Amino acid sequence: MKQIQSISYPIYFDSIATHLNQFIADGKYSRFFILTDEHTSKHCLEYITSKVDPDKYDLLEISAGEESKTIDFCIGIWKMLIDFDADRNSLLINLGGGVVTDLGGFAASTYKRGIDFIHIPTTLLSQVDASIGGKTGIDIDNLKNIIGTFTQPKAVFIEHTFLQTLPARQIKSGLAEMLKHGLIADVAYWEKLKVSNLELPSTELVYESILIKNKVVMADPTERGLRKILNFGHTIGHALESYSLDNDKNPLTHGEAIAAGMICEAWLSHQKAGLSAEALQEITDTFLSIYGKYDVKESCHPMLRGIMKKDKKNQGGKINCSLLTKIGETQIDNICTDDELCDSLKYYASLAYEPA
Amino acid sequence: MKQIQSISYPIYFDSIATHLNQFIADGKYSRFFILTDEHTSKHCLEYITSKVDPDKYDLLEISAGEESKTIDFCIGIWKMLIDFDADRNSLLINLGGGVVTDLGGFAASTYKRGIDFIHIPTTLLSQVDASIGGKTGIDIDNLKNIIGTFTQPKAVFIEHTFLQTLPARQIKSGLAEMLKHGLIADVAYWEKLKVSNLELPSTELVYESILIKNKVVMADPTERGLRKILNFGHTIGHALESYSLDNDKNPLTHGEAIAAGMICEAWLSHQKAGLSAEALQEITDTFLSIYGKYDVKESCHPMLRGIMKKDKKNQGGKINCSLLTKIGETQIDNICTDDELCDSLKYYASLAYEPA
Repeated sequence: MKQIQSISYPIYFDSIATHLNQFIADGKYSRFFILTDEHTSKHCLEYITSKVDPDKYDLLEISAGEESKTIDFCIGIWKMLIDFDADRNSLLINLGGGVVTDLGGFAASTYKRGIDFIHIPTTLLSQVDASIGGKTGIDIDNLKNIIGTFTQPKAVFIEHTFLQTLPARQIKSGLAEMLKHGLIADVAYWEKLKVSNLELPSTELVYESILIKNKVVMADPTERGLRKILNFGHTIGHALESYSLDNDKNPLTHGEAIAAGMICEAWLSHQKAGLSAEALQEITDTFLSIYGKYDVKESCHPMLRGIMKKDKKNQGGKINCSLLTKIGETQIDNICTDDELCDSLKYYASLAYEPA
Repeated sequence: MKQIQSISYPIYFDSIATHLNQFIADGKYSRFFILTDEHTSKHCLEYITSKVDPDKYDLLEISAGEESKTIDFCIGIWKMLIDFDADRNSLLINLGGGVVTDLGGFAASTYKRGIDFIHIPTTLLSQVDASIGGKTGIDIDNLKNIIGTFTQPKAVFIEHTFLQTLPARQIKSGLAEMLKHGLIADVAYWEKLKVSNLELPSTELVYESILIKNKVVMADPTERGLRKILNFGHTIGHALESYSLDNDKNPLTHGEAIAAGMICEAWLSHQKAGLSAEALQEITDTFLSIYGKYDVKESCHPMLRGIMKKDKKNQGGKINCSLLTKIGETQIDNICTDDELCDSLKYYASLAYEPA
């Protein structure tokens, strides 16, 4: 059975059947709580509850979707924990995608000044990204993760079985972060991943993606330096995601938004950090072929600028990007001007793309 | 100039004029923010702002009182920080009583996953208690500090000058925690303090009180064991405080509530932990003479039991008290039954007290 050791906790692979009960028993928890959303409670919950003592837990359910990642839902979780008399020796199991793990992690890290929690991520995106590294968070006014803590879970359980029934669009959303891991730190992984079966990445490729992210967060848990490389594509990507959430009927997924963001920031990397024209072309072609093209009108630029101005990574009012020097290598703390960011959006808008 | 080293930060005494500017300069903060309430902004703010660069800060003001220690006010602070474009390199200065330091500490510890903050406590209670030890917190439905984090400030500035204009009732509120410090850990301090000038405790006595608390929190920052001794009087005290806040027009101060709580828990200490009858009498007489007597009707017992059931310190549904074995020595993790707690309230109710 594969296992990765993170900062202070293990990441288990395909081990719920063998390890979850033991983990709960070893922790001597007074009680545990399972946080799900309406999707995971339909599709994944029984896989867990069939393996644990039914007298030992209570269920907390929230509605699915980024709209739930708010302080109101967090207050709802706090109040449910209060109503269930959850004490400091309780365990919260976050079963779901990034919304459930980020929100549940934040609720647990602040309830009675912190109770233990574990993540069982059920989407590819949350398996390779949100559940790894101890970031918890909620959004305020669509500013992503503007409130949160750095708090490590006590364990993460990665189960490939949960991926096998995910809609294609959700798989692609997680795939964008996997591709990013190759781009920022491991050219061999990028080469291997982009020609693999993209419809359902293998356990092995998921494992390697987590290995890359874990190595980065172990070296810099609170994002003082190195960890910023994970933000490649996210300055523009987060802005597009917030914008789309506010304005589109069928908003971009996180992966679709950062795929577009990575094309823009690859262009900035070419302009400012020495990324070659060939690499820019390769990155652009790869993401366009998988994700298609989002229609970013120039009339939205002022609004996107406004969102980027509020980005968590900024310092002293300056917008701070992580850019590629080549595929597999990243440079942090590149200050980008508003104009440069808008020019990168124009590059993206100018790309020729014919839907297949 | 006196100074105490805490977990990871200094506690300065009467040093704002000489040290505050230097502290801000050394931190290389992009900007700083001063959180006050309407009282401190009237009485204390100018003392600070006259000493710092007026171009470098913005003010955040909240209404005074425990009613402000809610998630709604916290959201208000988060949104003000967002509106001021506060980045991760910002500093929040919490200038006020325990509400401001607890609430401001929580808001700062979660904004963008944590920005630096310092405390400048302006009440005796916040100087000797709330500002020391890294607990941040907010109330939900009058459950005190049910949500919060353990996050250490970057510095604490204790200024005796702020005490000199405080109303007598506020001084007495802080005095209760000072007396508690003697009771739980230092009989000599208890003896000295109770015969000192109780109308305005000296800098020296404030300093010694902080020394006692700091020693405890240094040994156990996240309250796994020893730190629980600080909870003496607080199981019943917090319940009385919550009850009074909900039901009285002129509710108990924190100190008044825990003074009554300490009498009750001294009685429990006599029943269960070997505290002598003489010591119980001495504690009872001391607190009654300073704080008078609160009218706890037996009809309130069910409501008080309900509040104590939700106490943060409980484990596995059992109510957990810290009790005195003698004056200056405390035993943690005493399980008390509902009936024992109610009997201690009956002891309190039975005490003869004639207002002076």
